[in-house]
Amino acid sequence: MNEHYRILIHCNDEKGLVYKVSSIFFHRNLNIISNNEFVDKTHNKFFMRSEVAGEIAPDMLKSELSAILPKNTHLEVIAPRKKRIVLMATKESHALGDILIRYEAGELDCHIVGVVSNYDLLEPLVSKFDIPFYTVSHEGCDRDEHEQRVLQKLSELGEIDYIVLAKYMRILTPRFVETYEDKIINIHHSFLPAFIGANPYKQAYERGVKIIGATAHFVNNHLDEGPIIAQDVIHVNHAYGWEEMQRLGRDVEKIVLSKALKMALEDRIFVHANKTIIF
Amino acid sequence: MNEHYRILIHCNDEKGLVYKVSSIFFHRNLNIISNNEFVDKTHNKFFMRSEVAGEIAPDMLKSELSAILPKNTHLEVIAPRKKRIVLMATKESHALGDILIRYEAGELDCHIVGVVSNYDLLEPLVSKFDIPFYTVSHEGCDRDEHEQRVLQKLSELGEIDYIVLAKYMRILTPRFVETYEDKIINIHHSFLPAFIGANPYKQAYERGVKIIGATAHFVNNHLDEGPIIAQDVIHVNHAYGWEEMQRLGRDVEKIVLSKALKMALEDRIFVHANKTIIF
Amino acid sequence: MNEHYRILIHCNDEKGLVYKVSSIFFHRNLNIISNNEFVDKTHNKFFMRSEVAGEIAPDMLKSELSAILPKNTHLEVIAPRKKRIVLMATKESHALGDILIRYEAGELDCHIVGVVSNYDLLEPLVSKFDIPFYTVSHEGCDRDEHEQRVLQKLSELGEIDYIVLAKYMRILTPRFVETYEDKIINIHHSFLPAFIGANPYKQAYERGVKIIGATAHFVNNHLDEGPIIAQDVIHVNHAYGWEEMQRLGRDVEKIVLSKALKMALEDRIFVHANKTIIF
Amino acid sequence: MNEHYRILIHCNDEKGLVYKVSSIFFHRNLNIISNNEFVDKTHNKFFMRSEVAGEIAPDMLKSELSAILPKNTHLEVIAPRKKRIVLMATKESHALGDILIRYEAGELDCHIVGVVSNYDLLEPLVSKFDIPFYTVSHEGCDRDEHEQRVLQKLSELGEIDYIVLAKYMRILTPRFVETYEDKIINIHHSFLPAFIGANPYKQAYERGVKIIGATAHFVNNHLDEGPIIAQDVIHVNHAYGWEEMQRLGRDVEKIVLSKALKMALEDRIFVHANKTIIF
Repeated sequence: MNEHYRILIHCNDEKGLVYKVSSIFFHRNLNIISNNEFVDKTHNKFFMRSEVAGEIAPDMLKSELSAILPKNTHLEVIAPRKKRIVLMATKESHALGDILIRYEAGELDCHIVGVVSNYDLLEPLVSKFDIPFYTVSHEGCDRDEHEQRVLQKLSELGEIDYIVLAKYMRILTPRFVETYEDKIINIHHSFLPAFIGANPYKQAYERGVKIIGATAHFVNNHLDEGPIIAQDVIHVNHAYGWEEMQRLGRDVEKIVLSKALKMALEDRIFVHANKTIIF
Repeated sequence: MNEHYRILIHCNDEKGLVYKVSSIFFHRNLNIISNNEFVDKTHNKFFMRSEVAGEIAPDMLKSELSAILPKNTHLEVIAPRKKRIVLMATKESHALGDILIRYEAGELDCHIVGVVSNYDLLEPLVSKFDIPFYTVSHEGCDRDEHEQRVLQKLSELGEIDYIVLAKYMRILTPRFVETYEDKIINIHHSFLPAFIGANPYKQAYERGVKIIGATAHFVNNHLDEGPIIAQDVIHVNHAYGWEEMQRLGRDVEKIVLSKALKMALEDRIFVHANKTIIF
Repeated sequence: MNEHYRILIHCNDEKGLVYKVSSIFFHRNLNIISNNEFVDKTHNKFFMRSEVAGEIAPDMLKSELSAILPKNTHLEVIAPRKKRIVLMATKESHALGDILIRYEAGELDCHIVGVVSNYDLLEPLVSKFDIPFYTVSHEGCDRDEHEQRVLQKLSELGEIDYIVLAKYMRILTPRFVETYEDKIINIHHSFLPAFIGANPYKQAYERGVKIIGATAHFVNNHLDEGPIIAQDVIHVNHAYGWEEMQRLGRDVEKIVLSKALKMALEDRIFVHANKTIIF
Repeated sequence: MNEHYRILIHCNDEKGLVYKVSSIFFHRNLNIISNNEFVDKTHNKFFMRSEVAGEIAPDMLKSELSAILPKNTHLEVIAPRKKRIVLMATKESHALGDILIRYEAGELDCHIVGVVSNYDLLEPLVSKFDIPFYTVSHEGCDRDEHEQRVLQKLSELGEIDYIVLAKYMRILTPRFVETYEDKIINIHHSFLPAFIGANPYKQAYERGVKIIGATAHFVNNHLDEGPIIAQDVIHVNHAYGWEEMQRLGRDVEKIVLSKALKMALEDRIFVHANKTIIF
């Protein structure tokens, strides 16, 4: 019964938290594989993520930790398992393809339940990897009807840990976002908060920026304004047209999205005050 | 009379421009030291910068080039000379100091005519370098009066090629900007166009970005919206408070501003459609 | 007969080259799509790459250019066509997969003739993309015999423009390299010239570097010492074990290799004095 | 008597270290300002750095910690004070100047005792900042004699916490290095371990690299092989001559060196197995 657990603690800061938590680890003879803590002094919040191994049932460990932690602590004791992921995409294959190649190589510790798209364009690619592809066309129906059909499809796919928007080019309604709160990871093809909205590469080109980037973030009700998980950039110059910026930007997009997904799969991300704390 | 010239050409694009210009270089037996051209296909504009050496008077060279170039061409034939620079600053010394150290080392081919500030805080630093320091306090006068006094001081300093705002924390009025059109270089302590306005580091911190940056740009009448010259970024994470972001951001600010100044001194920057073309 | 050509010129530098070449473009009424030149003053070499469009046969254009260029000029007039590419790999799929996804998306203007590997591990992945996979096992034969079999297989595949070593982990002999001189592109999993040889990530870890990188280069007879095409890096710290460096390094490797391949396919690379000039 | 301490612990890893240390912090009612730990699993070493505030004498805190830590633990309880720094330089002013400007701005929490150089070229710059400048010429004496004089001068300057080689272009003998073990910080004008030795920019140029960098490291007896503290890079291309690489490289050098110095001043660096652990 030597088990491996990820322990996530998020609570108001107070003296002795590290002492109390590590005391349980010590007296329960748990082996600490990794340990990170952070105090957000602005909001007086304490965040801790530990990976431990040892002979203890998860319920007991959770109950012992709860006993010494402040009231209203968010506490998770996770016995790692393959998370269930749904990918959503539209027409572009780079971000989706990057995830598929990593998945095939065993780099992503998850189960990709299916890919949902409003077009059937990417079906040939996805089918190569023996992953179900569901086309939910938006043609002939309004936004609400279309989203309702997407939600229906998602609900048929069973429990979902994360929905990854791999260049899904439809705006989600608050209803959708609330259904999967803190579970939707998007890649925005821009260095947020700049160039919010449509065709950021064209906006970037017209503004004459010398750097372009991409942002992976959780989706909340305010479009493009959810907590940022990862960002990266590349340098450009006057000789780059916006299509070339877009082409080069795709390399940043896919790496940043895959990085964000990996961190989510490893339970490394806390969300607080519309920001992420990542260990 | 072997002279060295920088030739800047900016005109509507048409067939044969490179041929016609290089024909003059060839038949006048000029040695091409460097040569760059770019066509902005969106606006159908042609940009060319050449460094040449040879025995020809600048007026004659300019007149021969004019004869073969389209009407309304912006043409400059520049015999390099030390440009006259005024620095403006407020309280922070990092960007100003970086320029002073480079100046002292002979790295900047210019003459720093003086430093103008609304505080006297940086006078001890500037005085070390035997550069005149002019305090034009904004206390006890309104924005217009203060700016009028600054303009007065600047006019007393004679011809000015560039005004470098090395963390000058006052907003300039349209009158000021028009007086020195395309001659004012600012360092904005943010990755424009994100975080326009006051305390961008605090804005960045609150947005939870994973990258911060700085932008050197020409100043036009729309605050922070002038043509971008250079940008760079550094990665940050949740553990950085905004003051630490600010401290680290200063390293980016000063390098980016000095880089922009160097390019201006070497006549490498074209401005068109609120963007820069830099060779 | 409006044709599009890429013109590559590499010769000793002398006065008037740009004039003479652009004169032909002008008088032949060719439209210049892009134009780049560079003079390597150390070696007194002139490099020029132009993309032009117009009504002229390639042989005539080449003959006219030859007439005005110095003796011993390397001159190519290329009517773009899909280049024939062979990929070689061993066990890791990230670099290979990145190319396959781009290929599927139509991003790479080439024909992938086949994948050759000394293992059959990647056959399932490659087969998904309907690309022939050839296992040429190195087991039960010495290095020379194995390479002879690989060469035999390559010769059966017909004309090859580039061989891309997408993490092919076998050393090539001079015989192999000479057969495909300047046609083999390798990704080295290190920031060359550091950490030449086996397991660079372990070397990097043991040296305690704070940055790791990857290098795409042409292969010559001196292992890892061929002309560098592209490089990039990421920051690491003490908390990264070498396996994690390796995992993160793969993201750099694949992007850098795909970038190098794209530049080769677009005829943007000159090789001279064991260096690349890239337009 | 509310004191602020930095506690550095470096010992063999064993279970319960975090628990035991945090237990003392808790029972002594110390306020934890920051806390970082790391286990090097390869060498089974535990590293911890804590900043705490509270009412306890440093000797008592140290003695209590010693009692619960393994034998042979390196333990430091530091009440922050201005460290005494000597800068050494030769002819180039960029790295030295960057430190001086930061020092003047109060950004570096230290006392610069003096600058020692084998030339008097930088004396005018240093004198501006009212810092003693000592020329110890190497002319007319052999390496050993010169170094003996430098050591003599250093010993006259009293206790020294760190010697910063801000582009000091002389090789130090083992005698020198042993005298100031782990106290000498150097900036190497290259991306170590590439281009060890003389004129790395020329080496980089000749190798045709697409990235150049700089490395700040502690100096040990093997030239350029000491523990790396910080590194950074910039992208270059074929158009950069080695002098231009050198000029641009200076920007990286100075930022990287100042960063390393700042981390040393804040007691953030552990050295183990020729590597640094930096919190």
